Amino acid sequence: MNVLWIFAHPEPRSLSGSLRDEGLRALRGLGHECRVSDLYAMRWNPVVDGADFRHDAEERLIIGASSHDAYDAGTLSEDIRAEQEKIAWADALIVQFPLWWYGMPAILKGWFDRVFVKGFAFGVTGPDGRTLRYGDGKLAGKRAMVLLTAGTPRAAAGPRGVNGDIEHLLFPLQHGTLWYSGMSVLPPHVVYGADRLSAEQYEGYADALRQRLAALPTADPIPFRRQNGGDYDENLVLRPDIMPGHSGLAVHYATPAASRCTA
Amino acid sequence: MNVLWIFAHPEPRSLSGSLRDEGLRALRGLGHECRVSDLYAMRWNPVVDGADFRHDAEERLIIGASSHDAYDAGTLSEDIRAEQEKIAWADALIVQFPLWWYGMPAILKGWFDRVFVKGFAFGVTGPDGRTLRYGDGKLAGKRAMVLLTAGTPRAAAGPRGVNGDIEHLLFPLQHGTLWYSGMSVLPPHVVYGADRLSAEQYEGYADALRQRLAALPTADPIPFRRQNGGDYDENLVLRPDIMPGHSGLAVHYATPAASRCTA
Repeated sequence: MNVLWIFAHPEPRSLSGSLRDEGLRALRGLGHECRVSDLYAMRWNPVVDGADFRHDAEERLIIGASSHDAYDAGTLSEDIRAEQEKIAWADALIVQFPLWWYGMPAILKGWFDRVFVKGFAFGVTGPDGRTLRYGDGKLAGKRAMVLLTAGTPRAAAGPRGVNGDIEHLLFPLQHGTLWYSGMSVLPPHVVYGADRLSAEQYEGYADALRQRLAALPTADPIPFRRQNGGDYDENLVLRPDIMPGHSGLAVHYATPAASRCTA
Repeated sequence: MNVLWIFAHPEPRSLSGSLRDEGLRALRGLGHECRVSDLYAMRWNPVVDGADFRHDAEERLIIGASSHDAYDAGTLSEDIRAEQEKIAWADALIVQFPLWWYGMPAILKGWFDRVFVKGFAFGVTGPDGRTLRYGDGKLAGKRAMVLLTAGTPRAAAGPRGVNGDIEHLLFPLQHGTLWYSGMSVLPPHVVYGADRLSAEQYEGYADALRQRLAALPTADPIPFRRQNGGDYDENLVLRPDIMPGHSGLAVHYATPAASRCTA
């Protein structure tokens, strides 16, 4: 497979940097081709503005329209086009980051903000005029996996932990971004207590990472429901006969949470 | 009250810009003092790196330790200290942004990443040695409210909508960041279908915003559970006798969701 590894940590001499190096070594050892977007090393600009679209500053900026036009015309900023080209090349994306304020570091959020423009990752329609998203879209067929380092202990980010269930904290990324744009999302590989791992714990996580990467081409993705799979009504609300009486983010999984959790 | 309005949209001639102007006019008309952090206009740098802490690039960067030391020594970057000073001045924060990929624009995420450093917004302990967070901390006593513009129709971001419940999409910000650092978080004011509002719908949202701002000093905050309120065990997991058998983000609210939803 062709694998694009997106890395969003400022310090290569970190736990994150070590896991990235382990992971790339493992993938290459398995015969996969790898490319890396090391966002800090690239000095990636995470701020969407009119310059991305060669927008005339005298005119009011409407981002959806401007970005779509620039995407179609091939006039997006060169750094954005380079990332889109890497994604087009890739069969799978590894999205690696430290959890900062329960989300992505800004440099990574702005990679999605700038690269996932209208026409490329959303605002895509099929031949029958239906919007392609949540399991359909131009990026369908690709796989994605989050590799996360988090200071929180595992229990505090579990189903009843004070920080919120890690799967739900990742919902905007895993469901709202990766699955939205069509990708199959594998369960995340989460390193807990990342600021105080023993050498033994590190070896355990690194070994588990190698196993996860070995299964990258074949592992079952998170069973998010498809927008066009018949589960949602015309207002994009889950039909009343499906999980009646339930609400919350878990209703958007076709099978219960317990079966999808991994170490 | 002293109100800090944080604004994260690149185009002042936008729906977001109009709502900000309406909101500031209303607050000032009510006699409140207002300051604005217009992140795009300030060309805010959202990327955490060692330069924030005058870190020696030859040494391995450990962000928590470096940022805490720099905060204590008063040597954080000047732009960070200026924002911390505004927060210290404020009795309430309005956090206004367009929903991009189900989260904050990178420029705003990086405002939290850089400004909410250890010692200021987390890693604070009380006299008895307990960690102060989730309702306690240096920012306790301040209020915060999210003002959000989102393209999604209301139903699709409701309790069973395909995008996920908006309150849960905002959980990392409202619970994991604002409440974590001690602030009381008011229910969000959300403008749905923001890319296609009629003039009449705009007036409705602007009027509702004025009402929300008039109630800013007195409105009931979201009833998130306090970490040190007795609901969580020593592993920070909700005690088994509280909402037994339930999981998901809703368990961290002390009263059911229906009572806290606002237009």
